[in-house]
Amino acid sequence: MKELKERILRDGKNLGGGILKVDGFINHQVDPMLMDLCGREFARRFADVNATKVLTAEISGIAPALATAMHLGLPVVYARKTKPNTMPDQVYLTLAPSHTKGRMVELIVSPEHLRPGERILIIDDFLSSGAIILGLVRLAQTAGAQVVGIGTLIEKTFAGGRKALEPLGVPVESLAAIASLDNHEIVFAE
Amino acid sequence: MKELKERILRDGKNLGGGILKVDGFINHQVDPMLMDLCGREFARRFADVNATKVLTAEISGIAPALATAMHLGLPVVYARKTKPNTMPDQVYLTLAPSHTKGRMVELIVSPEHLRPGERILIIDDFLSSGAIILGLVRLAQTAGAQVVGIGTLIEKTFAGGRKALEPLGVPVESLAAIASLDNHEIVFAE
Repeated sequence: MKELKERILRDGKNLGGGILKVDGFINHQVDPMLMDLCGREFARRFADVNATKVLTAEISGIAPALATAMHLGLPVVYARKTKPNTMPDQVYLTLAPSHTKGRMVELIVSPEHLRPGERILIIDDFLSSGAIILGLVRLAQTAGAQVVGIGTLIEKTFAGGRKALEPLGVPVESLAAIASLDNHEIVFAE
Repeated sequence: MKELKERILRDGKNLGGGILKVDGFINHQVDPMLMDLCGREFARRFADVNATKVLTAEISGIAPALATAMHLGLPVVYARKTKPNTMPDQVYLTLAPSHTKGRMVELIVSPEHLRPGERILIIDDFLSSGAIILGLVRLAQTAGAQVVGIGTLIEKTFAGGRKALEPLGVPVESLAAIASLDNHEIVFAE
């Protein structure tokens, strides 16, 4: 998506080590107008998958997932990384390695909000190794729900995530695909 | 706001001990249409404070703050509770007691995204003791910014937060004010 790529080039920062800093418009400060555009674009791309719910992981998945859910008119669930005291004792829980945190994180969803038969559209900010998204897929499958699509704002094509998601056989869409962050550059895939 | 109060009565659960469970439409599963209505209402109530930025705290403040920022056309910043590796070494940091977590949490904002002279509208999901919101106020003040309004979806009027915020001399708006959660009931203030 043109607007997102332009914004990445303007305000994104390549910190080295494969890390792209986008905390001025995606994951600390959020540009709501850009997020709304991204949500609309995801809604357009996934118009035909007949999703019944959007699923993401806290924290930085919330903004793009909410914007997408607004355009699709669907509820959105964000997997928690710590269990709040309002959640029942029995939960769906999986572990996934977090690239940015450098350790395993828990992904927790209440069985009240992920039900058998639901058609799940997963939305997140980044597709890197795909580990967090595969964690969300496991939660959905454990609940008896079906993942019908996966959308991420930014894909690092060099990190292997798309290959890891391929066996699922569902459409995987990213709005900005980055082929390389070498030499302090930001090189898009197309 | 009528729609929010009706939803609280329909889907909220009084868990006892002053805890209201709203994780079916606010802070685990989110109803984007309701959130959009709440954002529009905050934008209406704070139309005259000339805010330049919306500030909230991760995690459950993100949805209402983003919806409000969309309607006001302003950027939104969410204070982080752990410092991501994309943030500079020098940050604004304060500690605040978390009611739901039963311990102190850090609230961290990058100086890149909270600047002197900014007019800050704070939006959060709950106003209970006001401790988290006062933490956000301290961050804004440390940055040399000015808090111009505070909005929360749900106020527990029995928890003293409004009194704690009064000395700030800024408008404090809540969309549903709950006077009592005693005897497993949900009693609104009006």
